Amino acid sequence: MNHKFLLVLLLSLSFLSLKATDKGGEEPVDLVNPFIGTSNFGTTNPGAVCPNGLMSVVPFNVMGSDLNKYDKDARWWSTPYEYHNVFFTGYSHVNLSGVGCPEVGSLLLMPTTGKLNVDYKEYGSTYEKEVAHPGYYSNYLKKYNVKTEVTATPRSSVARFTFPKGESHILLNLGEGLTNESGAMVKKVSDTEYEGMKLQGTFCYNPQAVFPIYFVMRVSKKPTEAGYWKKQRPMTGVEAEWDVDNGKFKLYKTYHKELSGDDIGVWMNFNTEADEQIEVQMGVSFVSMANARENLDAEQRGKNFDAIRAEARAKWNDDLSRILVEGGTKTERTIFYTALYHVLIHPNILQDVNGQYPAMEGDEIRTVKEGNRYTVFSLWDTYRNVHQLLTLVYPNRQRDMIRSMIGMYEEHGWMPKWELFSRETYTMEGDPAIPVITDSWLKGLRGYDINKAYEAFRKSALTKGSENPLRPDNDEYMEKGYVALHEKFDNSVSHALEYYIADNALSRLATALGKKDDARLFHNRALGYRHYFSKEFGLLRPLMPDGTFYKPFDPKQGENFEPSPGFHEGNAWNYTFYVPHDVMGLAKLMGGQKNFVNKLQSVFDKGYYDPANEPDIAYPHLFSYFKGDEWRTQVQTRRLLKEYFKNAPEGIPGNDDTGTMSAWAVFNMIGFYPDCPGDPSYTLTSPVFDKVTIRLDKAQWGRDNLLIETVRPNDEAVIIKKIELGGKPLNRYRITNDELLKGGVLKFYLK
Amino acid sequence: MNHKFLLVLLLSLSFLSLKATDKGGEEPVDLVNPFIGTSNFGTTNPGAVCPNGLMSVVPFNVMGSDLNKYDKDARWWSTPYEYHNVFFTGYSHVNLSGVGCPEVGSLLLMPTTGKLNVDYKEYGSTYEKEVAHPGYYSNYLKKYNVKTEVTATPRSSVARFTFPKGESHILLNLGEGLTNESGAMVKKVSDTEYEGMKLQGTFCYNPQAVFPIYFVMRVSKKPTEAGYWKKQRPMTGVEAEWDVDNGKFKLYKTYHKELSGDDIGVWMNFNTEADEQIEVQMGVSFVSMANARENLDAEQRGKNFDAIRAEARAKWNDDLSRILVEGGTKTERTIFYTALYHVLIHPNILQDVNGQYPAMEGDEIRTVKEGNRYTVFSLWDTYRNVHQLLTLVYPNRQRDMIRSMIGMYEEHGWMPKWELFSRETYTMEGDPAIPVITDSWLKGLRGYDINKAYEAFRKSALTKGSENPLRPDNDEYMEKGYVALHEKFDNSVSHALEYYIADNALSRLATALGKKDDARLFHNRALGYRHYFSKEFGLLRPLMPDGTFYKPFDPKQGENFEPSPGFHEGNAWNYTFYVPHDVMGLAKLMGGQKNFVNKLQSVFDKGYYDPANEPDIAYPHLFSYFKGDEWRTQVQTRRLLKEYFKNAPEGIPGNDDTGTMSAWAVFNMIGFYPDCPGDPSYTLTSPVFDKVTIRLDKAQWGRDNLLIETVRPNDEAVIIKKIELGGKPLNRYRITNDELLKGGVLKFYLK
Repeated sequence: MNHKFLLVLLLSLSFLSLKATDKGGEEPVDLVNPFIGTSNFGTTNPGAVCPNGLMSVVPFNVMGSDLNKYDKDARWWSTPYEYHNVFFTGYSHVNLSGVGCPEVGSLLLMPTTGKLNVDYKEYGSTYEKEVAHPGYYSNYLKKYNVKTEVTATPRSSVARFTFPKGESHILLNLGEGLTNESGAMVKKVSDTEYEGMKLQGTFCYNPQAVFPIYFVMRVSKKPTEAGYWKKQRPMTGVEAEWDVDNGKFKLYKTYHKELSGDDIGVWMNFNTEADEQIEVQMGVSFVSMANARENLDAEQRGKNFDAIRAEARAKWNDDLSRILVEGGTKTERTIFYTALYHVLIHPNILQDVNGQYPAMEGDEIRTVKEGNRYTVFSLWDTYRNVHQLLTLVYPNRQRDMIRSMIGMYEEHGWMPKWELFSRETYTMEGDPAIPVITDSWLKGLRGYDINKAYEAFRKSALTKGSENPLRPDNDEYMEKGYVALHEKFDNSVSHALEYYIADNALSRLATALGKKDDARLFHNRALGYRHYFSKEFGLLRPLMPDGTFYKPFDPKQGENFEPSPGFHEGNAWNYTFYVPHDVMGLAKLMGGQKNFVNKLQSVFDKGYYDPANEPDIAYPHLFSYFKGDEWRTQVQTRRLLKEYFKNAPEGIPGNDDTGTMSAWAVFNMIGFYPDCPGDPSYTLTSPVFDKVTIRLDKAQWGRDNLLIETVRPNDEAVIIKKIELGGKPLNRYRITNDELLKGGVLKFYLK
Repeated sequence: MNHKFLLVLLLSLSFLSLKATDKGGEEPVDLVNPFIGTSNFGTTNPGAVCPNGLMSVVPFNVMGSDLNKYDKDARWWSTPYEYHNVFFTGYSHVNLSGVGCPEVGSLLLMPTTGKLNVDYKEYGSTYEKEVAHPGYYSNYLKKYNVKTEVTATPRSSVARFTFPKGESHILLNLGEGLTNESGAMVKKVSDTEYEGMKLQGTFCYNPQAVFPIYFVMRVSKKPTEAGYWKKQRPMTGVEAEWDVDNGKFKLYKTYHKELSGDDIGVWMNFNTEADEQIEVQMGVSFVSMANARENLDAEQRGKNFDAIRAEARAKWNDDLSRILVEGGTKTERTIFYTALYHVLIHPNILQDVNGQYPAMEGDEIRTVKEGNRYTVFSLWDTYRNVHQLLTLVYPNRQRDMIRSMIGMYEEHGWMPKWELFSRETYTMEGDPAIPVITDSWLKGLRGYDINKAYEAFRKSALTKGSENPLRPDNDEYMEKGYVALHEKFDNSVSHALEYYIADNALSRLATALGKKDDARLFHNRALGYRHYFSKEFGLLRPLMPDGTFYKPFDPKQGENFEPSPGFHEGNAWNYTFYVPHDVMGLAKLMGGQKNFVNKLQSVFDKGYYDPANEPDIAYPHLFSYFKGDEWRTQVQTRRLLKEYFKNAPEGIPGNDDTGTMSAWAVFNMIGFYPDCPGDPSYTLTSPVFDKVTIRLDKAQWGRDNLLIETVRPNDEAVIIKKIELGGKPLNRYRITNDELLKGGVLKFYLK
C-alpha cells in the first residue's frame, strides 16, 4: 500500500472515530475515498466538488516536470490529476470526472514563496500529506512549506493557503490547463478582485466545440504588488534584439486593464507572517463575468472556509444517505459510497444563481423556468445505468435532466449525444437520449413534455443521414436495416447496434403513447441486428455495401482500443451480445440457450470481456435470461466487483465515464441491474450487503423506502438460493421497476 | 519620378482644376500631398485622418512579403506604410505619424475575394491607382480587383470596398500590426457588428508602457457566414497528432462569444454583385467598447462615406487656411501646406465624445472639464517649434494641450516627457514640458493653472535622481552642475544640455511669476554647460565623474545614429552649439564672434550638420546673433529647405518627429523661426513666399491678421536687404512675439 494512501486512510479513520454515532455507526460521507479511480485511467479526481456542482477544485499534477509519470503534453491524457504523479502546479477550477478526452481543467491557482516565478515548469512543487473528503482536499507543498486546502459550493470555490513567514505569492495561470483550447482575458477589478474569461473546448478533438468560462477571483488580503504576465510571441531579427521579453514570460507591473492572450496570468505578492492564511475565492459562470460574481456572492457571502466545507460535506451526506447499506466489509462500503459519490458528479448544474445559462449551440442566453439546467451529458455511457439510478433514487434530478435535454432540442433542434457546457461534441455514436427518457417515462417519472421529446426522437430516427448529426448513416440504415463498412476502420456495426437499441426504446415509447404504427416500424428496425449475424463465426460481423460479410474477419481484432473494422473501442466479442432488447432472438440465431450460454461464458473464460468499456458491461446479466444459468450472472458480477472495484487509486477498471462504471458497481452491489436501456426492468444480482435501505421520494414512488435484505450462510456465499418480494416468493431473476416498488422489500437468500 | 507618384499628381491637378476659384486660386487642402515623407524614413503616411484626430486609417504595407523592400519584422521599422513597398495587408486603424519607434497601427481591415484565406502572408495584395488627399485615401487591389477607399472622423473611420461579382470577404486581423505588443479580444455583437480590444505598447521598447485600444466595427451588409480565426499554439507529441489545427490558423465557424488570443481575427463572407460596395465603419476609444460605439454613433450617424469625406476635407481646409501663402512655386506651396498638414496630426485628441479618457499612468477613467484632452506628446521633438507654431496660429489648441499636460501632472505626479495614450514612455531625455508651457505663458497665452505647472516644473528640477523619472541624473547635476559619463555609451552630455535648456526656461518663468530666488538658481544652473567646454577641441566634451574630460575623444563619433560616448543620436558637433539660451556666452568661450561663426560655418561646410535630427536644427539661426553674419542664416535655411524638403516621398529629411521637421519648414518658409525654446522670440529667415497671411485668433492676439510680405528682385534672391515691421524699419534679425504681433506687418526686402 502506498504511504500516501495509507495516511489518508488513517486520517479518515481518526476522523470517523470522532464522528461515529452512538450505535458505532458511520456517516456515508465519511466512507467516501475520493482517491479511488485516480489511477489506472479511472480519470476521477480527489478535488472538492458539491453533488452535481458546476464548480470543482482539483489538484493539477499532470504537467511541467519529468518527475511525473503521466504528462498531458506528452501523451493522450484526459484528467487533471494522477495519483502517482508528484508535481503540483496549482488547483484547476471546473473539471470533468471520469472522461476519456482532455477538457476544461483550467484557471490554475497556485501559491508560492520566495522570488516571483511565473513559469509553471519552475514554480510547480512536489507535495505530501494529501487529504481528500467529499467537498474538501488538502496537501502540503514541500518546495514552499505551504499548506493548501480547497472546498467548494455549487458554483464557486475557496482555497485556503497557510504560508510561512516571508515573501509569498498567489498565481492564477490562465494559459495552461487540460483543455486543448487557448486564449484568455483577465482584468483587475480592485486590489483584491480580478475577473476574466478563458476559452475552452475541442473536446475529443472536435475543433468547433468551444465555449468560454467566465470567472471572478477574490483574495482575502490586499497584495503588496500585483500584475499580469504574458508569454511573448517569439520575434526574430531586429525586433527580437530590442525586446528583452522576447519569447519569455513578460511581467506587467503597472498595467491593470484588460489583458488578452494565449498564455497569460495574474501574480500577486504578499508579505506573510508565519502560518498566515490567505483565502482565494473563485466564482464561475458560463454566461458572463457579472454572473460569476453574482454566483460567488450568493453562495459564499457571510461564510468562511470552514462553513463552506461543512456545507459541502452536509450536502454529500444527505445525497449519499439516500442509500443506506449495512453489512459487508468497511472496504465494500467504502467502494460503494465512493461509487455513488462518483455517480453524483455529472451531469452537473449549468445555470447561474439568477437562472441564466447559455443556450445549446447558440449565442443566446436563456433563463431556466423551473428546476435546474444540467450539462455534461456523456449519454453513450450514462444511458446504460446512471440515469436509471437517478430515476429511482434521485427522481427530481432525473426530471430536471430530461427537461434539460428537451430544452437542448428546443434550442438546437436535436437531442444531445455528448453535450458539454451547451456544445454538442458528437462524441461516440447512436441516439442515446431515446433510452434515457423512455426508461424514465415507462417507469412513471413525469413532469416534462414527452410529446416534444417524442418529436425529437422521431426526427433523428427518420431524418436522412446528410442532415442528421445523430444518425449520419441513417440513409443506409433506413433502406437496408444495417450500416455497411465503407472505410477500413469505420464503426459501422457499432453505429447500427446503437440505432437498434434506440429504436427498441422508441418502439416501447411509441406503444406507451399509443402510436402503433411507429411502434411497429421501430420494433422491426430494432431487430435489424440479425443482418450482422454470421453463422460461420456465430458472431456479429461487419457487412459490406453489397451485403456480403467483411473478410478476412478476425473477431479478436480491436482489443485494447486498437482500431477494428466495424467496431468502436472493442471487437466482435465485445459487441456480439450487445442486443439487450432481443436476447432470446440472438440466442435463437446462435442455436439456442446452450450455445448462447456457452459462447457467453467463453467471453469471460477466454478473457474477451472488457470490464473497462461500455458495450459489454451488461454481458454478465444476460445469463439470467435463461433458466438454470442465472447463477452465472451472480458469480460473474461478484467476481468482477471483487476483481475490478477496489478501495485503491486503481479501484475502477478504466475511465469511470462520468459515473457509468461506478453506477455499474452501485447497482450490482445492491442486488439488481438495469441491463436493457429503455426496458424498465432489472436483472437481479447477488447483493454484497446484508441490508440496503433506499430512501425513496414518496411523492414519486408512493413509498418511503425500498429494502433489499440478504441472508447468507457465510461471506463466501454468492449464489441466490431463493428470493422474496414483498414477503412472497419470487421465481424470476428479472423484475420490473413497478414490481420492485410495489413489493417494497426484496429479500435474497444466498447459498 | 515614380509612376505612382506622377499619377497622384495628375489626379490632384485634375481635381484642382475643378476646384479652382474664379481668381484662378486654389484651396490649401488641395495642395497637400500626403505622400511627402512616406519614404526616406520620414515615417509619415498617406492615410485618412482629421486634424488632430484620434483615428487614422492607413494602408498597411510593411509586412508579409519579400516583394516589400522594408519589412517590420525584418528590421527596425516604425511606420505602417512605405512608399516603395508594394504588398498591402489591410488598413490599420489609429496610427502614429512621423515617429521613430513602432507603435499602434493595428486593427487591420482587409477585403479579399475567392477562397477564404486568413493568413496575411497569403491574403495580401499588390495594388495600384493610389490616391491620397487630406481625409481620404484609395487604392486598387490587383489580386482581387477590389477598389478600396477610406475616410475618417476624429474618432472613427469608414472604408468603402467596391467588389467584383462572386465570393468576397472582409477580414479584421487583430493579431498583427506595427505595435510589438500582442493579445486581443473580439466578440460578435450582431451579424453586422463586432466589438473588441487589442493591447498595444512597448513603444521604443519600454516594456511597461502598454495600453488597450477598444473598437466597434460595423459592416453595411449582413455576411452569408462569419466567424473568428486564431493561430493555434504549436503542440507537440500526441496532442499535436490529434489536432488538425495544430500550429495553423483555426477557423471558428459556430462560436461567436468572446475570443481572446495572441493572433486572432474576424472573417466575413459575402456574395457580391459586380461593383457592389460594402462599407465598414470602425469606432475606437481608449476607455471602453461602449465609448467606441458611442463615438462611432455620434460622429457617423446619418452620414454616408461621401459626406464624411467632405467633412474631413472641410476640416482640413479650415485649419490649413489659417495661413494663406501667395507666391512661390506650386511645388513650394505644396511643400508648405503638406508640412502644415503634418504639424496638425499630433498631439491628437484622446477623449471620447462623452468626454471620458484614461487618466495618465493609472487605471482611472476621467472626464474632461473643458476643451480637449490631447495625447501623443513627443516633447523632446516638439518643444522646439511645433508648440510655438500652435501657440501663434492655433492658440486654443495649444491651451488645451497645456491643460492636458497639467492634467497629466495632477494624475501621475510628473509632467509628460514622451506621453502616448496616457502612458509615459520616457523616450529621449530632458524636461521638455518646461519650455513648452513657459513659451506660451511668456507670449501671453492664458487659461490654465500656471502655478500648478510651476509646481510640477520645480518638482522635476529639484527632486533627487532616484525618485525623478524626468531627470534621473539630478543628484550629480544639482551637485556638480553637469552629468558625468558613467557608462561608455550613456547620453550624459545630451541629458545635461536638456536640463540647461529646461532650467533656462524655468528661470524665465520664475522671473515672470516673481520668484526671484528660483529665477537666479535656475539661471545659474542653465549656464553649467560651460563645464563641458573643452578648450583643446573648442567643443563640448564628455566629463568623467572625477571632473576630467573623457578620452580619447573623437568629436565625430556618433554620426549616423551610431552610439557615441555622452551624446544621444549625434556627436559633439551636433551638440556643441546646442546652447540656444547662451549663444553669446558660448561664443565668448570659443574666443569671440569670428571663431564661433567660423566653427559653426564649418559644421555646414564639412557635412557635420544633420538635418534629420533635432539637436542641431536651430544651428542655422545662430548666425543671426552676430552682426554681419545674419545672411548665413538666410542662405543656410533656404539651402536646407531646397535640399531636404521636396514634393516627393523623400521630401522630409528623416523622421518627421510628429511634425517637428515639418514645423521647421513651415516657420523657415514664412520668415521666422523660434530658435530658443522658452524665449518668446524668433530669428528672422528668408521667406519663400511673397505674401503670407496668418489669420489670427483676435481674442488672443488682438488682431485678425499677421502679414509677412516679401519683395524680391528675382527668384534667386535669398538674402535680406532690409526689413520693416509695422511700416517702420527694423534693424534686428531677432524679434519678440510681442513685437511681431504689435507690428502686424513684417516686410522683407531681399537682394
